Amino acid sequence: MPEWRKDPVVERWVVIATERSKRPTDFKTPPEEVDPLDCPLCVGNEDKTPPEIVAFREPGSKADQPGWWIRVVPNKFPAVRADERYYTWDEGVFQGMNGVGAHEVIVESPDHDTNLAGETDKQVEEVLWAWRERSLDLRKDSRLQYICIFKNKGRTAGASLQHTHSQLIATPMVPETIREEINGVRSYHQRKGSCVYCDMIQQELAQNQRVVIEGERFVSIVPYAARFPFEMWILPKEHQHDFGQIVEADVRDLAPVLRGSLAKLAGTVNDPPYNLALHTSPVNTGEELLYHWHFQLMPRLTIMAGFELGTGYYINPTPPELAARELRDTPIISPRIVETLREEVQHV
Amino acid sequence: MPEWRKDPVVERWVVIATERSKRPTDFKTPPEEVDPLDCPLCVGNEDKTPPEIVAFREPGSKADQPGWWIRVVPNKFPAVRADERYYTWDEGVFQGMNGVGAHEVIVESPDHDTNLAGETDKQVEEVLWAWRERSLDLRKDSRLQYICIFKNKGRTAGASLQHTHSQLIATPMVPETIREEINGVRSYHQRKGSCVYCDMIQQELAQNQRVVIEGERFVSIVPYAARFPFEMWILPKEHQHDFGQIVEADVRDLAPVLRGSLAKLAGTVNDPPYNLALHTSPVNTGEELLYHWHFQLMPRLTIMAGFELGTGYYINPTPPELAARELRDTPIISPRIVETLREEVQHV
Repeated sequence: MPEWRKDPVVERWVVIATERSKRPTDFKTPPEEVDPLDCPLCVGNEDKTPPEIVAFREPGSKADQPGWWIRVVPNKFPAVRADERYYTWDEGVFQGMNGVGAHEVIVESPDHDTNLAGETDKQVEEVLWAWRERSLDLRKDSRLQYICIFKNKGRTAGASLQHTHSQLIATPMVPETIREEINGVRSYHQRKGSCVYCDMIQQELAQNQRVVIEGERFVSIVPYAARFPFEMWILPKEHQHDFGQIVEADVRDLAPVLRGSLAKLAGTVNDPPYNLALHTSPVNTGEELLYHWHFQLMPRLTIMAGFELGTGYYINPTPPELAARELRDTPIISPRIVETLREEVQHV
Repeated sequence: MPEWRKDPVVERWVVIATERSKRPTDFKTPPEEVDPLDCPLCVGNEDKTPPEIVAFREPGSKADQPGWWIRVVPNKFPAVRADERYYTWDEGVFQGMNGVGAHEVIVESPDHDTNLAGETDKQVEEVLWAWRERSLDLRKDSRLQYICIFKNKGRTAGASLQHTHSQLIATPMVPETIREEINGVRSYHQRKGSCVYCDMIQQELAQNQRVVIEGERFVSIVPYAARFPFEMWILPKEHQHDFGQIVEADVRDLAPVLRGSLAKLAGTVNDPPYNLALHTSPVNTGEELLYHWHFQLMPRLTIMAGFELGTGYYINPTPPELAARELRDTPIISPRIVETLREEVQHV
């Protein structure tokens, strides 16, 4: 059974994933590339995953059969599990709890040879609807306090399968990162009476030095204190605390801003590996109306090393203003060009 | 000029390293392996680095000439610089300051083909003395508040040179990681009246499930909530807040515990890439007597991906008790065996 363990000094929880327990020899060989014929996320291979949780599919098509364009399945090797009774323990200075949570995979296309940057805006809208639907459904479990939606693209960014997909891990506590952001938002609100993200967006739009794409409702910027070269944040221009409450007009504007940011990244730096993480308000903890949800897009062109791990600080070799200018100047490339780029050598 | 920028929401500072500024094309090819003949850290190549800050060398030998066994030089491409006047700025919601700090390289051996795990205990003692000396010297600059000493081993852990070395970055603020630990230490002290690290060490020694090496004064453990497979912490058994105040008896006991931990790691999981970071009390901020200094040794066998970056939480596939047992059962291998291992393929 997986378990959550808390660091005795700082508020950091770790999942000890006993179900995928690795012994020393398991680290000796890198995992092999999956043949598309065996890809568990491909259309026609629905029997290679656990039964689907939900799918967007053609009328009349059956669950766990072809006919879908978005499919959500439980992770085959879940780090945490929804079907557990919740219990905690103390063991001297240590605290733990069993591995309550949920771990799902959102398959973003039936097609093996595509990725989010090369998808149509319509398909990206469907991905956003799937993320929203899972967020709304999972919060019905009152034990869960946060629903983390994220995407790893490229092996060096942690993706073990090439087929385009995102993941969701729901946790029974509010993650450290989100808690720190909420503290920051509250502290700023006490001092200034406004939302720090709203004020930042106003300033970015006025200065226009770090804006990458401005839509009607969403904006993509390179943050002032970007940790990573070509890092981007994608935020609603008007204050919204909860991604789960997005409406159709939001989705229609967000899809091209998100896809455009990914495509510009792919075109500017040769389709690099990246992580994308949704930051949104917690659930089942009282509504955090002061929070301002957004996506953080983190290209993996640099390596987090001893300084970053030891301090929590970062060294970014690409000034944000330079990155934004390069990204702005890169056209939003078409799916075909993304395909060609992907065949080139990936850098670590 | 490099600059520090602060995230407007959380207390996270980033160095925008303009001196090593990278444009998109700079990321397209991986850096090349350095030929030992050209290695700037090798004996005989002293002219390939900036002039040395300090070296432990044979009597009569000259600065920046052979005859040294430990050599400390400024980083050729410093992320931050000591020779700057300190100034800060506000720009709307943003804050920044110029790149005050220090960035040094500690060359741990004149020999290109060795590493810390394969060194003699005596040479590891010399490395510890060098770290201590730089820590004591740099704190004389009253602008500096923290001296971060760290080591990256292996390309995927961020090392750009193979020649065994560690680094030091001194910062004009207390890093987030250390601040969180100090808050945790203070909060525990208020509740229990004791040091959380001291209590943890007592419990670990009593339970004896996660201890790897116990020396007279130092102990190496796999932490209860380890983030990484085979992660180890090396701590003084008696309370000490400041690494800079270690005495000769400490150094003599710490060297074999540190080297032993590294050698056991290399023997257990095929000489993996790792980061090592010293966590110690800040300087020039009033003495933080409650803190308990230690090393964190973080093998890089897993990839920090969207979940880790989005939440600050980790998934560790190797239970700490299993890791500790494997490490305990691995003999402390000799330098020669480490050499052989290093020639095998490295895993990412």
